[in-house]
Amino acid sequence: MTENPSTKHRVVVVGAGFGGLFAAKQLRSPAVSVTLINGTTYHLFEPLLYQVATGILSEGEVAPPIREIFKRRRNLDVQLGWVTDVDVAGKAVVVSAPDGRERRVPYDSLVVAAGARNSYFGEEGFAEHAPSLKNIDDALELRSRIFHAFEMADLEEDPEARRRWLTFVLIGAGPTGVELAGQIAELAHRALKGQYRHADLAETRVILLDAADRVLPAFDAPLSAKAHKQLTRMGVDVRLDTRVVDVDAGGVKVDAGGGGERIEGYTKIWAAGVAAPALAGRIAQATGVPTDRAGRIRVEPDLTVPGHPEIFVVGDMAALDLPGVAQVAMQGGRYAARVIQGRLDGRPPKRPFRYLDKGNMATIGRFAAVANVGKLHVGGLIGWLMWLAVHVFYLIGFKNKVTTLLHWVVSFLGRGRAERVALGGRSVPNAEDRV
Amino acid sequence: MTENPSTKHRVVVVGAGFGGLFAAKQLRSPAVSVTLINGTTYHLFEPLLYQVATGILSEGEVAPPIREIFKRRRNLDVQLGWVTDVDVAGKAVVVSAPDGRERRVPYDSLVVAAGARNSYFGEEGFAEHAPSLKNIDDALELRSRIFHAFEMADLEEDPEARRRWLTFVLIGAGPTGVELAGQIAELAHRALKGQYRHADLAETRVILLDAADRVLPAFDAPLSAKAHKQLTRMGVDVRLDTRVVDVDAGGVKVDAGGGGERIEGYTKIWAAGVAAPALAGRIAQATGVPTDRAGRIRVEPDLTVPGHPEIFVVGDMAALDLPGVAQVAMQGGRYAARVIQGRLDGRPPKRPFRYLDKGNMATIGRFAAVANVGKLHVGGLIGWLMWLAVHVFYLIGFKNKVTTLLHWVVSFLGRGRAERVALGGRSVPNAEDRV
Repeated sequence: MTENPSTKHRVVVVGAGFGGLFAAKQLRSPAVSVTLINGTTYHLFEPLLYQVATGILSEGEVAPPIREIFKRRRNLDVQLGWVTDVDVAGKAVVVSAPDGRERRVPYDSLVVAAGARNSYFGEEGFAEHAPSLKNIDDALELRSRIFHAFEMADLEEDPEARRRWLTFVLIGAGPTGVELAGQIAELAHRALKGQYRHADLAETRVILLDAADRVLPAFDAPLSAKAHKQLTRMGVDVRLDTRVVDVDAGGVKVDAGGGGERIEGYTKIWAAGVAAPALAGRIAQATGVPTDRAGRIRVEPDLTVPGHPEIFVVGDMAALDLPGVAQVAMQGGRYAARVIQGRLDGRPPKRPFRYLDKGNMATIGRFAAVANVGKLHVGGLIGWLMWLAVHVFYLIGFKNKVTTLLHWVVSFLGRGRAERVALGGRSVPNAEDRV
Repeated sequence: MTENPSTKHRVVVVGAGFGGLFAAKQLRSPAVSVTLINGTTYHLFEPLLYQVATGILSEGEVAPPIREIFKRRRNLDVQLGWVTDVDVAGKAVVVSAPDGRERRVPYDSLVVAAGARNSYFGEEGFAEHAPSLKNIDDALELRSRIFHAFEMADLEEDPEARRRWLTFVLIGAGPTGVELAGQIAELAHRALKGQYRHADLAETRVILLDAADRVLPAFDAPLSAKAHKQLTRMGVDVRLDTRVVDVDAGGVKVDAGGGGERIEGYTKIWAAGVAAPALAGRIAQATGVPTDRAGRIRVEPDLTVPGHPEIFVVGDMAALDLPGVAQVAMQGGRYAARVIQGRLDGRPPKRPFRYLDKGNMATIGRFAAVANVGKLHVGGLIGWLMWLAVHVFYLIGFKNKVTTLLHWVVSFLGRGRAERVALGGRSVPNAEDRV
């Protein structure tokens, strides 16, 4: 290392999601030395992850390497590892390296932006049969399961079993569940149409379940209704007020208004809930600060942990009564970085964090999206064009913008899927002498 | 199914590599019913697989879905599965489905094009520490190992261990070994330069070993010399007449002219040899036909199995004294299809298969390739431009041609790697609460 870090203000940023990325981007001053710690080598553009799972985009397009993003930032060090604990008194984070070794990384200021993990609400056993979607490994696993299901349906001669292969159950009707349901319906009814000789893909059932009484509950009610109508038009079977009580290899058991029912289906995807990662609990314990029901840390109006002005919590880990969307994390990360910089510059404290709601959007299928922008409700094609513009704008890297647009042309104007590789592994047991 | 297959001549094609693909493409006649059986859902453009392993191309670009390629071919049925045996007397292949169930698929004519598998020459234990490159799963595993090695080098404080993370050992100096060595050297010395704060990537050692006395032995000697010189210029340590006698987690033991030596290095890649898949042995056994040393089937001049004019063996599985390159398989597959069609049309038997050698080429790095075209030897930039033109021409699908060219601009004119995602799994054990 060419610089002496001891003369600099050391900021450790935990997590390279939207919160951590925007905090790190903002901390440009050479008076600051930034260490950005993440469990993977990439920043994940999570709102498009479902498109990797359904064969539209490649993983590189939604997951640029963190080092590439920051290659010109000499005051920033990227480190691979999981932050397992924070030594609040000693001002250091404990990091577990991929080889299992632990190390301590000291800080003067800490920005914790470790996001959320999927939650099975205590039923962790569901995960084996109904995987969820949180990182690139998950997306490739789901992609393999989805495309293999159609292959197996084509091979299967027993009509009952074939029906199970052609049934896809999405548990949770938030943006991820809705977007996956829409894309799987498009695969069956449009993209893959005519490519199978034995299975009739028109028989595909895409079932979207939620315990709530409407889809996309984070949106205004009229948009939920619009999304619901669009999903139904695309052939998605939307079942609300329906709670999943059991999941096994062959299907799910649901409880709808007191009446139990079993849905037979081999491919189940869990998109029902998120919770704070274990690190939130460790920080709460170490600082004596309470968490909310989802395990998120109750922070001060300036996003710091009560009694610890040097620790900021941004994005999904902070209990703020804000939606778990990219914009909240981005703005939180940038705010925390500005407070840190302001303190170093001797400026008076910034006013409390205020989230500027730029709107919320979700796609349902091609040419159909819903968007809340302030009091404006937009649906259909206009919503979809807005969705497209916003997502291309926020994608990282010129190359990714270009190839992503090209892949969207292939998938939405055409009906191809450019990235349909189904990997071996769990869904294909035999690995000897592959032919 | 809308057609009655019993009135048609049933052709089963085993394998959707270059041989099987070109046979199936040729069998267009509606008088023929084709069943194409493959162990994965994709056709693999194997000559570019090393570019997936080194972050240049996405898997979709080199592995288009077989169904997509044949979607307009109503006389063709794609089936996922591994052909484990051939019932020569009963004229049926035995297929193992991904769920382990076996089925029989009857044929009137059979085209076996199951390619080659990697061979560890009896030392199968080497595979754990020195994986090889044969399909997309392998490429993603190698990509993860390569990019994680640089990450670990950056985290490692012990200079000995860091040196092991920065040492890459390629075993086998055929095209795959040479191309991987060149690309890993480019990664270390160009693409990733300046992105690490602790490890000095200039210390990276790329060691290319072979028991033979020159690299690329399938090429003319002057081209081998050219490739060797180019590799050395790129910083690759080429060690010939060097046999690997042991491989473990920490390195390899080699025997060079009687003197033993140990090379410490965490990342080893096996590119030393291929052999026929187990299916070749089954067919040889069932028909009483001998195989060569690599287990390949000795076929008649018309590529049929002696005594079985209905069974064709094309590509790497046939013992023909031809190189194991795409062109041999393509021409063999097309030839077999034409013989089958000729018989149905009552035309006189075709003359024996003759391979038209259109040339052989391998890239070493950007702007550098070697090519044999007839008696012409081409190296350097001109060889590289030829390589580029030929590979774009043979890539399947307009979309893949466009995005591949774009990715080559990024990697060769620029110095980026568009597909650098390192997956979790073996190389990153901890999966709990990823941050």
